[in-house]
Formats: sequence, C-alpha cells, structure tokens
Amino acid sequence: MTHHHTYTITKDGQLLIKKMESDQVETVWDRHAAQQPQCGFCDLGLSCRICVMGPCRVDPFGEGPQQGVCGADADIIVARNLCRMIAAGAAAHSDHGRDLVEVLAAVAENKAPGYAITDTEKLNRVAAEYGIATDGKKPEAIAGELAYAMQEDFGTRKKELALTARAPEKRQQLWRKLNIMPRGIDRETSEAMHRTHMGVDNGWQSLLLHSLRNALSDGWGGSMIATEVSDILFGTPKPAPTKVNAGVLKADQVNVVVHGHNPVVSEMVMAACSEAEMTKLAEEKGAKGINLCGLCCTGNELLMRHGIPMAGNHLMTELIIATGAVDMMIVDYQCIMPALSKVAACYHTKMISTSDKARFPGMEHVEFHPDNAQKKAYDVVKAAIENFANRGEVYIPVEPLDAVGGFSVEAVVSALGGTPEPLLDAIKAGKIRGAAGIVGCNNPKIKHDYGHVTLTKRLIENDILVVDTGCAAVANAKAGFKVAEAIAHAGPGLKEVCGSLEIPPVLHFGSCVDNVRILVLAAALANELGTDISDLPLAGAAPEWYSEKAVSIGAYVVASGIYTILGPMPPIAGSMNVVELLTTGLQEVVGATFAVEPDPEKAAVLIRGHIENQRRNLGLDSAEV
Amino acid sequence: MTHHHTYTITKDGQLLIKKMESDQVETVWDRHAAQQPQCGFCDLGLSCRICVMGPCRVDPFGEGPQQGVCGADADIIVARNLCRMIAAGAAAHSDHGRDLVEVLAAVAENKAPGYAITDTEKLNRVAAEYGIATDGKKPEAIAGELAYAMQEDFGTRKKELALTARAPEKRQQLWRKLNIMPRGIDRETSEAMHRTHMGVDNGWQSLLLHSLRNALSDGWGGSMIATEVSDILFGTPKPAPTKVNAGVLKADQVNVVVHGHNPVVSEMVMAACSEAEMTKLAEEKGAKGINLCGLCCTGNELLMRHGIPMAGNHLMTELIIATGAVDMMIVDYQCIMPALSKVAACYHTKMISTSDKARFPGMEHVEFHPDNAQKKAYDVVKAAIENFANRGEVYIPVEPLDAVGGFSVEAVVSALGGTPEPLLDAIKAGKIRGAAGIVGCNNPKIKHDYGHVTLTKRLIENDILVVDTGCAAVANAKAGFKVAEAIAHAGPGLKEVCGSLEIPPVLHFGSCVDNVRILVLAAALANELGTDISDLPLAGAAPEWYSEKAVSIGAYVVASGIYTILGPMPPIAGSMNVVELLTTGLQEVVGATFAVEPDPEKAAVLIRGHIENQRRNLGLDSAEV
Repeated sequence: MTHHHTYTITKDGQLLIKKMESDQVETVWDRHAAQQPQCGFCDLGLSCRICVMGPCRVDPFGEGPQQGVCGADADIIVARNLCRMIAAGAAAHSDHGRDLVEVLAAVAENKAPGYAITDTEKLNRVAAEYGIATDGKKPEAIAGELAYAMQEDFGTRKKELALTARAPEKRQQLWRKLNIMPRGIDRETSEAMHRTHMGVDNGWQSLLLHSLRNALSDGWGGSMIATEVSDILFGTPKPAPTKVNAGVLKADQVNVVVHGHNPVVSEMVMAACSEAEMTKLAEEKGAKGINLCGLCCTGNELLMRHGIPMAGNHLMTELIIATGAVDMMIVDYQCIMPALSKVAACYHTKMISTSDKARFPGMEHVEFHPDNAQKKAYDVVKAAIENFANRGEVYIPVEPLDAVGGFSVEAVVSALGGTPEPLLDAIKAGKIRGAAGIVGCNNPKIKHDYGHVTLTKRLIENDILVVDTGCAAVANAKAGFKVAEAIAHAGPGLKEVCGSLEIPPVLHFGSCVDNVRILVLAAALANELGTDISDLPLAGAAPEWYSEKAVSIGAYVVASGIYTILGPMPPIAGSMNVVELLTTGLQEVVGATFAVEPDPEKAAVLIRGHIENQRRNLGLDSAEV
Repeated sequence: MTHHHTYTITKDGQLLIKKMESDQVETVWDRHAAQQPQCGFCDLGLSCRICVMGPCRVDPFGEGPQQGVCGADADIIVARNLCRMIAAGAAAHSDHGRDLVEVLAAVAENKAPGYAITDTEKLNRVAAEYGIATDGKKPEAIAGELAYAMQEDFGTRKKELALTARAPEKRQQLWRKLNIMPRGIDRETSEAMHRTHMGVDNGWQSLLLHSLRNALSDGWGGSMIATEVSDILFGTPKPAPTKVNAGVLKADQVNVVVHGHNPVVSEMVMAACSEAEMTKLAEEKGAKGINLCGLCCTGNELLMRHGIPMAGNHLMTELIIATGAVDMMIVDYQCIMPALSKVAACYHTKMISTSDKARFPGMEHVEFHPDNAQKKAYDVVKAAIENFANRGEVYIPVEPLDAVGGFSVEAVVSALGGTPEPLLDAIKAGKIRGAAGIVGCNNPKIKHDYGHVTLTKRLIENDILVVDTGCAAVANAKAGFKVAEAIAHAGPGLKEVCGSLEIPPVLHFGSCVDNVRILVLAAALANELGTDISDLPLAGAAPEWYSEKAVSIGAYVVASGIYTILGPMPPIAGSMNVVELLTTGLQEVVGATFAVEPDPEKAAVLIRGHIENQRRNLGLDSAEV
C-alpha cells in the first residue's frame, strides 16, 4: 500500500517514502501504523507507573477504578505525568545549555582548541547582565567569569535566575507573586521529580504551577543560556541565503549530514569540512568536494550562523538516508530516532554518535569533548570521505529551494533601523495585525509539514508576521516562504512592510532553544510599550509537536503571557480539571492559555481572533474574525 | 469478605483492617484489588509515554510491535523507564537534603527561630570534610560556610561530590574509571531526564550506568547531606528506649501523629507538644496530656533522636486513623497516600499539610518555613487539642511493644568502645558471619511486614547482624526484635556478641535517607581492613519496597559494592538484557548485583550464601548454605 501522498505534503518526502517502500525499508509511519491502536489509558494520561504498588489505571468511563492504589485520582495522575514531561523537556534544553557553558569555560582556560569567542560585543553585553565588570578585561577572562556566573544559575543558591530580569517588570512581579520565579535551573527539574514521587504533591494545581516554574527555568534559563552562549562562541546570526530540502544533497560530492541540537560538535565538523586538505582528499577519492548539510536543529544552528544548507526536519531524517547519497551522518543529541541506524544499515551511510550522553545501537561512537573536538572532527570527516567509494545507487529526487535564515533579535532590530519601534508602528497602524511564533516538531499523527505550512500561509495572508524555529522553520523554508518574493503570499499590509524592509514574511529565528529569541523580542516590544507581554497581539503555535521539549516550550511561552495552540493533544484528556485549567483557567493566572487544535485552518482562525482581540484591548483598530 | 489475616502479619493491622471493613472505609488493599489485573505492558516496563508520537508498547510475546514509533526497542524502553524511576527517587531524597541545608543556612543567619545547632562536634567534623577551617569560629559561622559548600554539591561546577571521599579509595577509583563519580546532585537528575528524552541516550547500558551515577549522587550526596545536617541540627542519635505499634496511641490523651520524611516540621511540632502551656490547654479540654507519635520516616527521625513512639509503617498509615484516636495528623512529604484524607473524613482526624511542595486534597494547608515553623507548630498543636472534643468511638486494639532505636554510626562505634575493630574481630572470628541491611517500604503485593520480619528472623538466627531503616525498621520493632532480650532469637555467636554489648541483634539505623549510615559504616569497615566495600560479607534487602526512592537506594547500594535483593520485581522484566545486566553483569562492573526474590525464606538463603561466599574470598572460615 502506498501512503506517500497521505503522509507528507512535501515532494521530496513523497518520493523518498515511495523509494523506501520499494526498498522495503521501514519508516516512522510504518512503525506508527503498527502501534495502532495506541493505549487509551496512556493517551489520556490516566495510567500511572510512578510506584510499584501499581501500575494503575483510572477508568475514563467511570465504571472501573477511579483512583490508583495510593488513592491518586485522575487529576493527580494526569498532572503528575504532565509535570514529568515538562521536567524532561526543561532538563533536555538546560543540559544542552550546560554543555555550552562548559565549552565557554574551557575556551576561557584555553583548553578547547578550535573554539573561540566570536561575538565579543555580545559577550560583554551578557556579562553585564550577570553583573560582571568588563572594562579592560580580555574576552577570555570575561568568558571565564560569565561561565562561572551562569553555572550558578543551574544550582540551588539563587532566588532568581539572572536572565529573568529581561522580562517586563510586571511579568517578573507576577512570577514572584505566584511563587513561580525560577530559582535554579536543575533545582526546578529536581523538585518536579520530587513533587511527582508517590505521596508528595497531590495538588494538581500546585503541581502544574510548579511545572510553569520548571518551564520558566528552561525558557529564561537553560535555553536562553544555550542561545546566548552559542552566539558568543559561534557568532550572532545575521540574514544569509541558504538552500533547503533533500535536493541540497549532491550526487557528485561527499555528503556529510549533521543531526541533533547542539552546535558544539557540528561547528568543528564544519571547520574540518572547509579545510583545503579535506577537499583535496575528497577529490582524490573521486568526489567534487565536500557538501555539509544539516538536519533538524543542529542543522538550524549552522543554517542560522553560516547559511549551511538544510536537508530536512524530523520526519525527513530517515528519508534523507534513503537517498543513498549520505556518506556520513553525525549526530549529537535529542530527537535522533534510534531507527536511523537500521535505515542506514540498508544503505551505505556511516552513522557517528558523538556525545557521552547519547549512544545508539548500530552507530560508531566517536566521543567529542571540548579538548578533542577539533581533532575528532577531522577524523570523522576523513572517514566520511573514505565512505564515498561505498555508495550504491543515489536518488536525489528534487532540486533545492532558496531560503533566507539568520534572524536573530539583533538582526531584526538592525533591519528595523536599530530599534523595534518601526515594527510597533506597523502594528499600531494595523499594517501588521500582530505576530505569531510557529514552532515545534513533526509528528506522524499529523500529515508531515501540513500543519506548519497551512497555518503559516493563513496567518501571513492575513497580515500576521510569522517567526519560526525548529522543524516548523524548516517546513516553512521548504514551502518557499523564506525568500523576499514570498511577500506575494502576504496580505497587503505585511507585504508593504516586509517589501520595504526586503525581508520575507516568515522569519527564521533558529533552533528549538532559540525560541528564547521570541521571548527576548516579545519582552523588548512590551518594554518599549511599557506593558506586559500578555497585552501584546502575539500568539504561539506548535502544530505538529511530538516531544517533551515542546511541552516545556509551550509552558514557558504561556507562562510568559503568550497564547499558544498545540496541534496534537497532550496526554491530559483524562482530567477535565487539568484541561480546563490549561485552556481556560490560566488566563486569570498568567494572562494566557493553551488551546489544542490539530486542524491548522481552525488554528489560524483562533490565532487571528486572539490577535484582533488583543488589538482591541490595546485600543488599536480591530476586525471581526 | 475478610482478608485481614492474609493482608498483614501484625495483630494491630489485622484488627484495624477488620474495623475498617466494618466501618465500610476503603483501604489500600481494596484499591489494590480493584486495580487487578494490572497492565502487563506497564508492569514489564514495555510501555513508553516519553513522547506523543506514542504512547507505544512492545509486545512481550514477539508477535506485535518490537519497537516504538521512534524505533526504540524493549531494552531502550525498559532502561529509560527505570532511569526515570531512579531519577525521581534520587531527586526526592536530595530535595529533602536541600531543605535541611536551607534550614542550616537560615540558622546561620539567625532567621530560623526555634532551630539551633545541636551537635557542634559533628558540625565541625563535617565542615572539615568540606575543607572549612573551624578554629575560633562560632558554630553559626561554620554552619553558614557549610551550608554554602553543601549547596555547591547540588550544582554543576564540581567534579566530585565532597562526601564521596568517605568511600574507600578503591571504590572512588572505580567510580572514576567507570565515569560514574557523581558531579552535582541536581545535575545528575537533570542529565537523567535529558538522556531519557526521545532521541538522546539509546544505549541501554550507558543509560543504566548513568543511573548508577544518579543514584550515587543521592547516596553519597543528597541523602548523606540530609542525614548529616539533620544530626547537626537535631542531634546525632544515641540508643534510647521507645514504644511501637498502634498501641502507642492513648485513649485519654490528645494524639498528634506526624507522618512523612523530613524532621524540619516535626521537630518544631515536638517542641510545641512539650510546652507546659499546651499540656495545660489539653487538660482544660479534658485530656490527660498530649501524646506525640510518629509514622513512617518522619516517625523514624523523631524515634532515633528523641525516642518518640512509633505508630506504624506505610501500610499502617490509613489504619492508624481508623482507631478514631488520632486528633491530628501532620504530614510533610513523601509516601503520604492521598487516600489518607478520605479515611480521615470518615473519622474526626484533622489532616494538616505543611510543605509548599506537597499539597493534598482534603487537608488543611499550614505552610511551614524556617522563619515561621516554631509559631505554626504552636498553632497546629492548639488546633489538635481543640479537636480532641470531636472524637467519636476510639479503638486502640493492642498494647504497645518496647523497642530501642538510635543506632547512628557514632553510637555503634561508641558501643564498640570507640572503634569498629571489635565488630571486625567478631566477624573474623566467625561469631558474626556478616551483616545485612534490611530496608525499604511496605507494598500491598507482599503480606504486610511478612517480608521484613521473616528475612530478619532467618538472618539473625544464622548469626547475621541486621541493621534496618525505614518501614523495615518499624516492622522489625513491632516484631519485638529491637530489645536486648531479642538475642533469644539470634544464633549463638550473634547472641554472645550482642549480649556482651547489651544491644539488640537488629539495630535501628533510622529513616530512608539514613541508609547512608549503612554506607558510612560499610566504608569505615572497608577502610579499617584496607579493602573495598564489595569485599565485605555484607548484603542489602528491600523485601517489600514500593517507591522510586527505594530503587535509587538499591542502585546506590549496589554501585557502592553491596549485593542487594529486591522483594517485588521492578518493572524491567520486559528486557532480558536489562535484567541480566542488573542481576549478573554488574558483578564485573561494580562488584555487586541485584537479585529479585519475593519469598523472604529464599532471600535469606541467598543472603547467607552470599555472605559465606564473601567470607571464603576474604580467607575467613565459611560454611555451605
């Protein structure tokens, strides 16, 4: 049976699914089909495995047990499970941030050959936020002090994380009042795991409030540190052209694909790939050069800072291997399907894992650390070149498309002439109705890229500026929304504004941790207006999310005051209380709520309605939706 | 249907179950029965809810799917689930430790009225381990520095936790070699949550190794800090007589029961209960005084340091309320069944929750903090006294038994004359064959107290010294093993040694976090012999465990080199690789393994065999078992 048209809207995806069917190689959609029907208890969040008096299940129809062995009811069980999802998501982002801080510390000590401080201006600016005097100091000395101060944010001694001071004063006061101001990044995750242990927090409201704090420790802590330190080390992104989709692979070159989330490994791989010695070696082996491409957020990191081409997002990761053109895939961590090595085994692709915290069956493990990364990168790129000779049939089904990436907040403000005011003016004038962040993953439960692309299309044609990150950003790039000419898809006001600024109507803000760039921009806009983020005509959406990180992102975005729509339903439907709090009750608490709407057409209507409503409350012109 | 004889071996338990049946009040056993059959996928560890591409299930019979949507197989799914259990257990203990460090810091700043440094000798000793000079400083100044240094252990900057230096040098070297030396307490928990996110660590071995590191950050970190700081603040335990079982409740007094794990609240409650003003008030209300009793580990904390009587362990917590004699139950956190307030609603018991991280439906929340705890304790004790008038029928079914608690390592060494040598001599001479720690919870899957008591009986009659903690310690106290006369149950050698020292053959080592006292003693013995812990004739057992904390304890005990038997099977049977590694393979890695044996008679044979085998390897006389 061929499903390639129902699984994805993308041409490269459809053709490669067809190829994998004919190659008889299993895909994520096959495994998803094999799991049907998925367990209803788990899906509703009503199963509990927190202790071995259980496992327990609450009957959603009210006929079987309504509580677990300990007495926990549906509300508690659902809230505990959700709290742990957020804890894992926050931990993943924050541990990623920690790794960057450790590289920064190693650079300061001159123990990380190949790494350097690239953006000293940003180094000084962030150091000042941590109260570090920078006058007359060498960048390395400042970096050392900054790394030390950032490590303190992970600990247990602080009352408030340093970068929460970037939030509007009103928002900070609200967090203090609610007792959800994050104190320590790891601390909040540990406390989440403690609270969800049997017999600790059995208040579903207090659990969920702590989850907001835990998520804020990600958004205004771990992820924000990850982004800022990545910029300091590897450069703050500026708009630059790139290419996207499976067509970025080249039949006549050695294709090295990097996949994962952390730029620490891929930056060194990029440096190795651009060495003349390597090009020469590749040519000796019959290739016309070395072609470095990205996947997922490691790809986004390189795309944002260096214009490295992007082969695809989450659900493309298996398909890209099936081109037969990938001589090596180098992975770091997060969202790397363990299935990849099985797919690679059907072709010639050499799979390399690089992180001490992420091994995969069937991959060769080459462990990268700050002190050896430069050398290891050379080793693996050489091995990739050697593997070129082992290629079988190659099938690169499409030509690549153009796109522009690199919209850091600094770049956006610079494009606006040095201040966010022109953007605010355009919003006040109603040319731009508002802005929406479209973020998150792919999920086989949603037709691949359909959620992202449809929602984006509907928003820009209604004069809503879209900023995007992660797999959503890749989807929108592949849909052709990230070139200046894409203003043709925009409504008249947005077309005018973007046209005059020569920017696309859909701005690539980076990887998943870079969602914090959206927070920083939103805070800057609110500060400029002297108001809170929750008053702005903004919205967020994760139309195809799948991961725990996405839940943490959604939670910190909502806790920061931005209305957010999830595509797939999180496993909470077993508790009407939890659903009600998240989708309605939070409005009174943090001035924003979640909504769940898998149909992007309907999600677009919800966002347009929300933005017009926010405009009305701000005293701006508003329309009925 | 009456099950009271099949549910528990205890007389008070049987009679109170009968009463609850006749009162038509639901018990934990009823809820356990209602959950049958429990989900086989969850029970085997084969269900995965880590992302919303799932939920997924691996078919244990090999007929259905063998991998989740991402491609994770049974090994990865089982290992990830176990890793998260250990993370939650480690987080619970360590967050408890953090709370004590915060009280220590508040005492140092004179911001915790009612709290004080009680054991300055221990304060100085522990401070020295943290490299803090103590000469000529006031205790409060030292406490401030120690709290600060301990907070550093929770963070991200250290390479090794301070108290790991207590482990034998060989063991420390092994941890370094295996790369499982814990670096930061919260850090290891966060990294566990990161590694178990979709697409991060898919090596089941590397996941489990990290779990050992995470557990070590509990045993030689969070829990050890909890115990040491509790001793510094509230006194290092010394042997003292007490009373145990439901009979400690008094029909003619105001009964205040404290339940949970952290002594911070209960110490203040104890102080309030002993005020003359309170006694007077109680007498005015028609009571003959105020009777403070403990449950579970909060009870153990008070029992160890002050001889406060112990009403029961985990599965007794509902039944104690059914006596109708409990005027107030004050809970802090961990292992507090949310069902308790439903039971309390059927009697007159007033339920008070006290921690900002642990709320319960149906309880009154009176939040204790270091700065207000003394005052809040007065308030709640007064409310307990007021509630005496609301009592209905009271049924205290048994008379209390005598027991002796308070065996800190310091107390044991003191009883031995100031050095552990006499204990080693008795072991070398074969009078004592070895020692076993019996620890952990109750679980309705095992007949209440049967596992603990049967195993203890078999071990002491075979000349194996038993030290116990937590619910196991309460079970053994209720069985009459904790009086000097209990040497009648011991074999001839143990009887001789304990008789001459005038100690019971079963030594109460404290609460669950106090399992670290076992580590400290084991390390001291190994250091005295110039060997590693794994060479000693020691074993551990958790015959009736139920909680994630118990899994963390088991993991740090095994990673410290002590063979450990679990009663109930953890949810790992879905992966033969994981089972094999934990029960066999770990021997080569850390010199100890887990075993699973729900039948305590068989567990006793396993432990005896292990201890005789260890004796043989040490060149001591040994017997066939």
